[in-house]
Amino acid sequence: MAAAAAPPPPPTPAAILLPDSTPTGHPLFVRVRLATPSDVPHIHKLIHQMAIFERLTDIFSATEASLSSTLFTSPPFQSSTIFILELSQTPFPPSPTSLFFSPITQIVTLDLPIDDRETETFKSNNRDGGFDAVIGGFVLFFPNYSTFLGKPGFYVEDLFVRECYRRKGFGKMLLSAVAQQAVKMGYGRVEWVVLDWNVNAIKFYEEMGAKVLQEWRICRLTGEALQAYGNPAN
Amino acid sequence: MAAAAAPPPPPTPAAILLPDSTPTGHPLFVRVRLATPSDVPHIHKLIHQMAIFERLTDIFSATEASLSSTLFTSPPFQSSTIFILELSQTPFPPSPTSLFFSPITQIVTLDLPIDDRETETFKSNNRDGGFDAVIGGFVLFFPNYSTFLGKPGFYVEDLFVRECYRRKGFGKMLLSAVAQQAVKMGYGRVEWVVLDWNVNAIKFYEEMGAKVLQEWRICRLTGEALQAYGNPAN
Repeated sequence: MAAAAAPPPPPTPAAILLPDSTPTGHPLFVRVRLATPSDVPHIHKLIHQMAIFERLTDIFSATEASLSSTLFTSPPFQSSTIFILELSQTPFPPSPTSLFFSPITQIVTLDLPIDDRETETFKSNNRDGGFDAVIGGFVLFFPNYSTFLGKPGFYVEDLFVRECYRRKGFGKMLLSAVAQQAVKMGYGRVEWVVLDWNVNAIKFYEEMGAKVLQEWRICRLTGEALQAYGNPAN
Repeated sequence: MAAAAAPPPPPTPAAILLPDSTPTGHPLFVRVRLATPSDVPHIHKLIHQMAIFERLTDIFSATEASLSSTLFTSPPFQSSTIFILELSQTPFPPSPTSLFFSPITQIVTLDLPIDDRETETFKSNNRDGGFDAVIGGFVLFFPNYSTFLGKPGFYVEDLFVRECYRRKGFGKMLLSAVAQQAVKMGYGRVEWVVLDWNVNAIKFYEEMGAKVLQEWRICRLTGEALQAYGNPAN
């Protein structure tokens, strides 16, 4: 299911790391930026990892081609929009000013370095003058509309952080970036969904200020049941 | 809450009607067409009736001005789109062919005429050569996106039929029009929400082919909790 996911994850065995000589911690440079079409291969891999996490690979049918032909079809924030989470051992170069979105950067100091075993797979294509960064997650959102407020909002379809980068505040950083953009645009709401048994995620979202609407259920018309409406006689 | 609503409603006392001399029934001409900016005053009234029906007038703050400035900002189907349900005692004139959407017409034969006590309030502004029709309801929807399918869908934010026109298949006609449009555009899903205690609505939606997702809950960040993210330091 393509719905907001992931943070926080189940505990995983700690990676075995050699003792480090730096007693002051390990700085990690973090950036949230707009995705571009060149990110599609990475986005596709991240969505697949999310489908595995949610045990929903049976309904995963997206391809790089289907993503490429349906994303980036309008300016950012007008339809589906993706923020990419990038991580680097060295500081990011200054971002060029953007008409749509200026990247958000942060420095996180970790007790232990993160053991990312997929750095090659997730090396960012968005290089600034040869600068290397690794993609750690993404958030995909699009405008919705509240008739009661009489104004648009954002709906967060996916929020995903790769396993080795979880529990470090990066999910919050991505979701906050969406909320901040909503406020900037004068929008009235940010909404997403959560599985009712995912108590850690619910706690996390509530701490971020969200309310969980207990009475509403999602109805979905898809597959053959939807196709049946293609016949106007239906 | 601005979420799919209404059909079917609680039973209401039948209007007192005089016996009618036509034994063959009462034909009612029905049309589903795209809304235009001139429909905003009617749309605002319909949303307000929906808020009363859902007992959610406390969160109803839309005005004609807020609707006018946020709807009709892009071509139909690219963002929030409204289909209007119109009813008439006489046949609709042929609709001009449209680039975006050709109106759907139907004739419904009723045992008794409908006693609409708000015909003046809801007289359609969309007159074809002086032809009068009454607005009976609307559906508001916008594109969403499924990353698992790698394609867009439609999300139905509101489905509302005025009380005197309920239980006649008009809600189904509006929702079917959205589903048909989704198929036409190659979209993968149509989704909406329903209150978990609204068993009649759930039955109605399931009969239309929809599945109710029991495990997912909506999270909402709004009001002051959202505004707090306007400060980038948050």
